[in-house]
Amino acid sequence: MIPMSALHRLIPEWLQPYPKDKLGADLAAGLIVTILVIPQSLAYALLAGLPPQLGLYVSIFPVIAYALLGSSMVQAVGPVAITSIMTYSVLSPIATPATPEYAVLAAVLSLLSGFMLFACGLLRLGFLSQLLSRPVISGFISGSAVLIVISQLKYLVGFSPRGGNSGEVLLDILHRLIESHGPTLAIGLSALFVLAIVRLALSGWLVKAGMSAARAAFIVRLMPLIVVLGGMAVVVAFDLDRRHGVAVVGTVVSGLPDFNFFLPSLESTQSLLRPAFVMTLIGMVQGITMAQALAIKRRERIDANAELLGLGAANVVAAFYGGMPVGGGTSRSAINVAAGAQTPLSSIVSAIAMIGVVAGASQWFERLPLAVLAASIIMAALSMIDLRALRLAWAYDRADALALLCTAGGVLLFGLEAGIGMGIVLSMATLLFRVSTPHIAVVGRVPGTEHFRNVARYAVETLPGVLFLRIDERLFFGNLGAVEQRLGQELERAAGTRDLVLVMSGVNLMDTTAAEVFAELNHDLAERGIRMHLAEVRGPVQDRLMKSALWGALSGEVFLSANAAYEKLAPAKVWCPEI
Amino acid sequence: MIPMSALHRLIPEWLQPYPKDKLGADLAAGLIVTILVIPQSLAYALLAGLPPQLGLYVSIFPVIAYALLGSSMVQAVGPVAITSIMTYSVLSPIATPATPEYAVLAAVLSLLSGFMLFACGLLRLGFLSQLLSRPVISGFISGSAVLIVISQLKYLVGFSPRGGNSGEVLLDILHRLIESHGPTLAIGLSALFVLAIVRLALSGWLVKAGMSAARAAFIVRLMPLIVVLGGMAVVVAFDLDRRHGVAVVGTVVSGLPDFNFFLPSLESTQSLLRPAFVMTLIGMVQGITMAQALAIKRRERIDANAELLGLGAANVVAAFYGGMPVGGGTSRSAINVAAGAQTPLSSIVSAIAMIGVVAGASQWFERLPLAVLAASIIMAALSMIDLRALRLAWAYDRADALALLCTAGGVLLFGLEAGIGMGIVLSMATLLFRVSTPHIAVVGRVPGTEHFRNVARYAVETLPGVLFLRIDERLFFGNLGAVEQRLGQELERAAGTRDLVLVMSGVNLMDTTAAEVFAELNHDLAERGIRMHLAEVRGPVQDRLMKSALWGALSGEVFLSANAAYEKLAPAKVWCPEI
Repeated sequence: MIPMSALHRLIPEWLQPYPKDKLGADLAAGLIVTILVIPQSLAYALLAGLPPQLGLYVSIFPVIAYALLGSSMVQAVGPVAITSIMTYSVLSPIATPATPEYAVLAAVLSLLSGFMLFACGLLRLGFLSQLLSRPVISGFISGSAVLIVISQLKYLVGFSPRGGNSGEVLLDILHRLIESHGPTLAIGLSALFVLAIVRLALSGWLVKAGMSAARAAFIVRLMPLIVVLGGMAVVVAFDLDRRHGVAVVGTVVSGLPDFNFFLPSLESTQSLLRPAFVMTLIGMVQGITMAQALAIKRRERIDANAELLGLGAANVVAAFYGGMPVGGGTSRSAINVAAGAQTPLSSIVSAIAMIGVVAGASQWFERLPLAVLAASIIMAALSMIDLRALRLAWAYDRADALALLCTAGGVLLFGLEAGIGMGIVLSMATLLFRVSTPHIAVVGRVPGTEHFRNVARYAVETLPGVLFLRIDERLFFGNLGAVEQRLGQELERAAGTRDLVLVMSGVNLMDTTAAEVFAELNHDLAERGIRMHLAEVRGPVQDRLMKSALWGALSGEVFLSANAAYEKLAPAKVWCPEI
Repeated sequence: MIPMSALHRLIPEWLQPYPKDKLGADLAAGLIVTILVIPQSLAYALLAGLPPQLGLYVSIFPVIAYALLGSSMVQAVGPVAITSIMTYSVLSPIATPATPEYAVLAAVLSLLSGFMLFACGLLRLGFLSQLLSRPVISGFISGSAVLIVISQLKYLVGFSPRGGNSGEVLLDILHRLIESHGPTLAIGLSALFVLAIVRLALSGWLVKAGMSAARAAFIVRLMPLIVVLGGMAVVVAFDLDRRHGVAVVGTVVSGLPDFNFFLPSLESTQSLLRPAFVMTLIGMVQGITMAQALAIKRRERIDANAELLGLGAANVVAAFYGGMPVGGGTSRSAINVAAGAQTPLSSIVSAIAMIGVVAGASQWFERLPLAVLAASIIMAALSMIDLRALRLAWAYDRADALALLCTAGGVLLFGLEAGIGMGIVLSMATLLFRVSTPHIAVVGRVPGTEHFRNVARYAVETLPGVLFLRIDERLFFGNLGAVEQRLGQELERAAGTRDLVLVMSGVNLMDTTAAEVFAELNHDLAERGIRMHLAEVRGPVQDRLMKSALWGALSGEVFLSANAAYEKLAPAKVWCPEI
């Protein structure tokens, strides 16, 4: 028999017990979310190169899986822009979109990245999401957004562009713009125009007209659905699809699909392992960052590893039911919060309602024009391009701005994987470069005190033949060259030095390389007749040093404080010939 | 006309002017080195899978190139163990050793890595040699040494083992040990035995017998040559090669080879680019580290970038004249120093003397038994295995010891490239992990002073409702999660906090991500009714922060010192109801 406590741990916290006073809010929010996310679910499936209805399918069971395992109260998972464009960019070179082979590969990608996310959660690797700095993430998202826009232009112009990469596709579309399919272009641009007005001005107008800000925001969120319905109405009214060749969603298999369990082939696993890894990394960062942002606003807490379990389970379920990768969605979650969701019950309600939509109403979307869906994707993508982050980073820290630009440029020129790779390498290189130039100061005693300060900034006392150097940085393989160089310079400047006192108050770590280099330095200095002393060595550093070759061989002494060294090394005033 | 100053810069420093008093020492050292490095030059060419005489060829012009461009006074370049085993392990899977195709690829490898080293020197990338920690280097060298030993066993047993990788080769040799060629095994093991005795005990015996330590060391260095000559004498005396099938060096083309200029094919360049890069990295680290070690002992200075130019030029020249990669050699340099070399003139003398050897005497080595050369390689390789480094690292820092083991294991199991890659990734991960857990302390004022100390360690005064937190680490994308978490914990512990004072004396950098996260934190805390103050912000950090969103939005104040914050936030004593 399973003990109650184990069973208890299997039930998510928000259900122990479920706060009944939140039931109404969650029910209402769930139903509203279902309706509002329909257009984007269809659109992101299209973006991923998959039949639009898949976007609805993965808004059912994956959502429930996340609700039961994740830790965020309001994050909503489902098809999202980044995972969709990644799916498209990974799979389109090796299979033709909208074919059965393509669909199988998309499911494998979802399964692999879901498995990796889940494993990272089990192994408590949530901290890995810190590997990416915000400028790198921002650059990645902005670059991806541009790729998304380019990938959707074909639905606006209504012809298939030639070209292997985004640049070629863009040039071909611009070159052959005149060949555009008129009705398609007209309906697409109209949708884009309306959505742009909504995004830029509608909320302001409504508030000015006396509406409350909350209600205005709700109406703005409702507009994409209205535009989609409007586009469909126009198509139906003028029979644009049948008589004028405007591309629409087309035959949608009615009713719920079966659970489709499969084991991926070795070949597909091998070819998708690396993209799945990148997807895992991005999914991890995006999911955790957003859940955290939402939690901070609501004074709740999330558990990064539970988030990974939730996202992983959602993707594994998505692989078997729908077959496209899902993630934590910015706009989905915003809709969920705006609709008043209080707990994950809202997501479960929305999943159940979506079953109803898929089972009973999905054929309603058969005549939905692709150009309108593309317009809504383009609007969403444009809002992801974050020029303000670049401006701020440029003002604040050029190296970070450079990392942002390189990541975005890498994504555009070499693809998503190479872009994020360049960003990570650049971030690590910046870190290493900065840590490799440690701050070191020649210090002296502030007269009448026991304090030691930089001789360059304060009027301090020094001792003839004694050099006090304060090292303000952990010592590790990457910065020892700079430390040695600086030490050599200072010893050259202070010719006649007999005693070197290293004030180690700022050194909270010395790695093996550092211990060896300092042992060699000690030996070398001793041969030149200079004793090396240590002062203010921190406890943990000293514990280790006592096991190193340096400790026994140290030519000088270990002092508790710089002042103790000063007192000891000062020439005795009584007999000292200089005085 | 070229100005004199430019011409002057082209002449190496040690020739401006050449110190005449050192001429005798350099001449003698150069001649001694020529004789002593002959066995290892032949042996390392054999190790690289090339005809032994190539080792002599690349001891001529590459040596001169390095002498003119390098900065070390006594480093000797030539064929070395690490570059030779790398050449063998890179090329043996794609070509058959000792064939013309193999030789061409070896020359291309030398050219590519020479070009990269030279480029790194021009771009002043010498600091990149710090990318590798000593445990990683040590693990790499020890792992390579084991590969070297295994690669030479075939010459001792006198048959060709089957197997694709070192493990299979070793197993096959052990399995078929009984099939060994008797005379070959006998001569090889005898050489190994003599060399082992020499290495372990000869110097001690000689000193005990009354010889000076310096002379004893010289005799020890002379022994490999004597063993090689002895081996040759035995072969000639008993006609072992012709009558008993003992493998010998064989036909050596007499006289000097031509300079052989070529341009590498695109195909070979592509396939060798990555190995050449790894070779460059290792060559860089080994060359610079050793030149530095020698310079420290002699109180000279080296210029890391000049070293790269020298090593690069030596390899480019080696590609066209001899065709195998060269490096800064540990034992070569030791011989050079022991023989009394004072300047690079000694290397030039040795190169010229080597021309004589190659032109007039190289056919003398035709009957040199390969088993003896293999024995000398094995002895050299065994001395490269550094178990002491592992023991020290294990005692000092487990993470470093792990990096060492992983690098060595990676080299043995997955090859040289993968091994060094694993080592680098592990070093960086360790760095990131350590920097990601910053030291943060809740501090209070030491009564009667203006000093602030950790409340956990000192009896200090605190203010009700005010939390003083000192952050002792640069703030960057990798450690913000830990900072946020700790901050949350401390705020939870100190319920009722109205003011949070962040003492930033230990923060010498805040990157863009940190500025953003702190701006969000400030906003979040303000909503919870907690003001965020900053104290003791360092100048450069403050200069940047003034450009960030945090500065304008800060809910609290910026204080010059923690004490100023304390005075300001302390309830006025006159009216305070608590008193």
